[in-house]
Amino acid sequence: MKSIFDKDLPQTPANHTPLTPITFLERSAEVYPHHLAVVHGAVRRTWAETYERCKRLASALRLRGLGRNDTVAVMLPNTPAMVEAHFFVPMAGAVLNTLNTRLDASTIAFMLDHGEAKVVIVDPEFAAVIDDAIRLRKCRKPLLVIDAEDPVFEGSANRIGELTYEDLVSEGDPAYAWQLPEDEWDAIALNYTSGTTGNPKGVVYHHRGAAANAISNILEWDMPKHPVYLWTLPMFHCNGWCFPWTLAARAGVNICMRRVDVRAIIESITRHGVTHYCGAPVIHNLVVNAPQDMKLNLPRGVKAMVAGAAPPASMIEGMERLGFDLTHVYGLTEVYGPAVACVKQASWESLDIGDRALLNGRQGVRYHLQQGAVVMNAQTMRPVPRDGQTIGEIMLRGNITMKGYLKNPVATQEAFASGWFHTGDLAVQYPDGYIKIKDRSKDVIISGGENISSIEVEDVLYRHPDVLAAAVVAKPDKKWGETPCAFVEIKVGARATPSEIVEHCRRHLAAFKVPRTVIFGELPKTSTGKIQKFELRTRAGSVAAITASESKA
Amino acid sequence: MKSIFDKDLPQTPANHTPLTPITFLERSAEVYPHHLAVVHGAVRRTWAETYERCKRLASALRLRGLGRNDTVAVMLPNTPAMVEAHFFVPMAGAVLNTLNTRLDASTIAFMLDHGEAKVVIVDPEFAAVIDDAIRLRKCRKPLLVIDAEDPVFEGSANRIGELTYEDLVSEGDPAYAWQLPEDEWDAIALNYTSGTTGNPKGVVYHHRGAAANAISNILEWDMPKHPVYLWTLPMFHCNGWCFPWTLAARAGVNICMRRVDVRAIIESITRHGVTHYCGAPVIHNLVVNAPQDMKLNLPRGVKAMVAGAAPPASMIEGMERLGFDLTHVYGLTEVYGPAVACVKQASWESLDIGDRALLNGRQGVRYHLQQGAVVMNAQTMRPVPRDGQTIGEIMLRGNITMKGYLKNPVATQEAFASGWFHTGDLAVQYPDGYIKIKDRSKDVIISGGENISSIEVEDVLYRHPDVLAAAVVAKPDKKWGETPCAFVEIKVGARATPSEIVEHCRRHLAAFKVPRTVIFGELPKTSTGKIQKFELRTRAGSVAAITASESKA
Repeated sequence: MKSIFDKDLPQTPANHTPLTPITFLERSAEVYPHHLAVVHGAVRRTWAETYERCKRLASALRLRGLGRNDTVAVMLPNTPAMVEAHFFVPMAGAVLNTLNTRLDASTIAFMLDHGEAKVVIVDPEFAAVIDDAIRLRKCRKPLLVIDAEDPVFEGSANRIGELTYEDLVSEGDPAYAWQLPEDEWDAIALNYTSGTTGNPKGVVYHHRGAAANAISNILEWDMPKHPVYLWTLPMFHCNGWCFPWTLAARAGVNICMRRVDVRAIIESITRHGVTHYCGAPVIHNLVVNAPQDMKLNLPRGVKAMVAGAAPPASMIEGMERLGFDLTHVYGLTEVYGPAVACVKQASWESLDIGDRALLNGRQGVRYHLQQGAVVMNAQTMRPVPRDGQTIGEIMLRGNITMKGYLKNPVATQEAFASGWFHTGDLAVQYPDGYIKIKDRSKDVIISGGENISSIEVEDVLYRHPDVLAAAVVAKPDKKWGETPCAFVEIKVGARATPSEIVEHCRRHLAAFKVPRTVIFGELPKTSTGKIQKFELRTRAGSVAAITASESKA
Repeated sequence: MKSIFDKDLPQTPANHTPLTPITFLERSAEVYPHHLAVVHGAVRRTWAETYERCKRLASALRLRGLGRNDTVAVMLPNTPAMVEAHFFVPMAGAVLNTLNTRLDASTIAFMLDHGEAKVVIVDPEFAAVIDDAIRLRKCRKPLLVIDAEDPVFEGSANRIGELTYEDLVSEGDPAYAWQLPEDEWDAIALNYTSGTTGNPKGVVYHHRGAAANAISNILEWDMPKHPVYLWTLPMFHCNGWCFPWTLAARAGVNICMRRVDVRAIIESITRHGVTHYCGAPVIHNLVVNAPQDMKLNLPRGVKAMVAGAAPPASMIEGMERLGFDLTHVYGLTEVYGPAVACVKQASWESLDIGDRALLNGRQGVRYHLQQGAVVMNAQTMRPVPRDGQTIGEIMLRGNITMKGYLKNPVATQEAFASGWFHTGDLAVQYPDGYIKIKDRSKDVIISGGENISSIEVEDVLYRHPDVLAAAVVAKPDKKWGETPCAFVEIKVGARATPSEIVEHCRRHLAAFKVPRTVIFGELPKTSTGKIQKFELRTRAGSVAAITASESKA
């Protein structure tokens, strides 16, 4: 017999509507119509204006035959069009595929084919690469190309499309009655992983997860209404960690930026009264290492969120000294950006800055609306002891987890084996439940049978005052199997030598962990500031032991 | 053919977990184990302790055979047991039925029967009435009675149950592996409406809605982590507007209170550093009208939320002068308490306090995670013009809406007709989208064919400096059909006469709206501070025109 609580109490349109971040825009336009939503060069738009433009754009897509589950690809820097795309594409029922603007034409062509894009919206800066990519496509179905012209762009306006973005705006109906998604499990976005090996995988986000992560961002940051948010983080990366939706939920201001540049960051913070921004460690390091006179007017208390790579303790310390309130989060494309946060504890405030930075350098605990973040033995799927020692794999579970990999059921099932998302990141869990990454599975260096955490060695390198950036990878070695190879970028004007760096490592590390090879030079980075270890591994393989004399134990 | 975004991308335990406020407790216990959760007399418990007790209690219920969809009734004031019940009952899969502690034995007996309670947990203060209610039950199935003793209670500990609440704690397993609800649509709570006519209706809440409203409370209030919350609002009323769950999500402190008393409120605010509290207007009026010397040390900036009845502008003004930051919200039992908020606009700050109070006295706009709040013509189901004039019915829609009325499909279908929840409240909508209640459908007075809003007349009454509380109801009249009858409670030491009150109304109202009858005396109120208009209607019907001489137009 059915329980009284299961009987005659169905879901109806009155008591059940899909969770979706689109409604955040609708509500802010209703409640805060005259509040500023977007700032870009001379452009200023309110939430009412942004909503009206999004209704026009969604309606124009529908008029051109786009609808549910159709893919709209965009190749855009952090411009107003990119903010709008996060709303009008799903308002048309379609799926937003943000393309990484640093990618080459053949990779883009793969994504356009694989994601079955029907529309691509392109900034003039990337018109040439998209033009090439379109020619390289295998798919012969029509692709509508739209040029998103930008008055702030200083290059030549190289048009390759059928119409411009503003033409599309004009085509649309400002009173368009857009619909909620049929189901909150419907796809809202498609994000390709950087794919260090093989083809990139297409990570599909759903409306429910996008809303859950956007709200979790607010909860972790105690973000009040009307923040002023600086777009240093590319929106093509995990949909800017869902912050376009967070900003709509808070009726905040999107300060757009075409290009990340330390002077522009610092000037924007001061000029626009920026309250929040996000980025990989490299972004924050730019600020920390900016010339002293540039930093004179920096306000204190600006909230900065760091993720994308484990931030070195020295960077956390540097940010704190400058008066930034730094929150360290951890995540992956598969979990909408941040899904774990190094939640600060009041008791840490009495510690000295170095000890505090070590605690803050841990990845932390699950995000508010994520269900679980546990370090497990991947064989037994049992949590490792919370001893800060035993290494396992970080497993995540909950609503802030992708729908799966597009057209790749095998990879999806592997990723979700045993009901947890397998991150591939190796970590320990401390008695307080905080997770600390030791390495990516593939970044561990196995030397003479001993595991070496590349991150541990990097942390030591960063503690050297002359080191600006560092990365350690495995170098094939006949005797040891692998040995640690360090790539180091030193600060302008610094004078450290490779042998001094080795000496520094020897003072802080067990002998077998000390890099056998140290190579100076600029580090290759992805567009999101992640150091490209796969590139360094290739280099390490081809480097003769030119510095061997300096690295003998 | 299935779309690529609908294929091979199923919900799994890795990427889909039920939304439920229970996980808020779990997370705060994990992340903030040593933070204070509950304060009550000499009792101090952390979030870790509270979680452990809830695991024990849930496990003890399971051991005694309770499970999914079983009803656990509680008759408790705002004590730690009441906070815990909001977690351990759903952790056992059961449904929490909070009973209004002001109710009589026969009404309680009806609720125990109708809700099919298997357990009742009772505070010693209410042991006698529960004892009577149990005898009055029609249902003959066993009912487990548990005495929730309370060291703060000063009366005699009248035990009527099989065991005590602390016995139940002892029975349970602190390591109990409780389960998430099978579905977020599962019932979490059962709240009986006050039921002014006929039997009370049982409003069923689901996990999804409870989580959505708990989060919306945070979003509207910009509530940071670790608030200190004073329990002036009864938790038996709409589950304390979902604040037990909000507090768990924010790892805040529950300052418990057995009894609402103005001295206790003001002392608690100062002693515990209270940052937030909620209540009906009557609660805030107590504070506004407290003796001057009692209010000397009140901190400024405490956030107060008011709902439960339209607050008179004079109260809003008084709170503001005392330095409270007042948020006016609107809702009903059917929408988990608040579902509409009078969101403050920066532009209002430059207005004078009276004009601002008028704007703040409106019910406002939809809550963050509610989908829609619109004033509609109930016949056509079309929105009324946003002119601040045209009266329609407030319709609500979205995830912050009940599952329905228990065992009452007819009432549920009526309430949700045409895909909107019909509130029964008559209102106008202003050009800025803000809703302003004009009256409950049943409170409108129809005099000589003209509609009179009882609230409009009450607002005028409250503007008289001697009026502490006022209510206007229809009085049957041979000539006019109905005439307005005012019941007025004047302030201690005030000297206004009924005829002065009539004169005051005449200055501010059209002649036909002026009360024909004015009666002085204490107003009957519900336990949540709502004035009992049904009681006043009865009185108005039986009152001869004793004050007629004072109320001739």
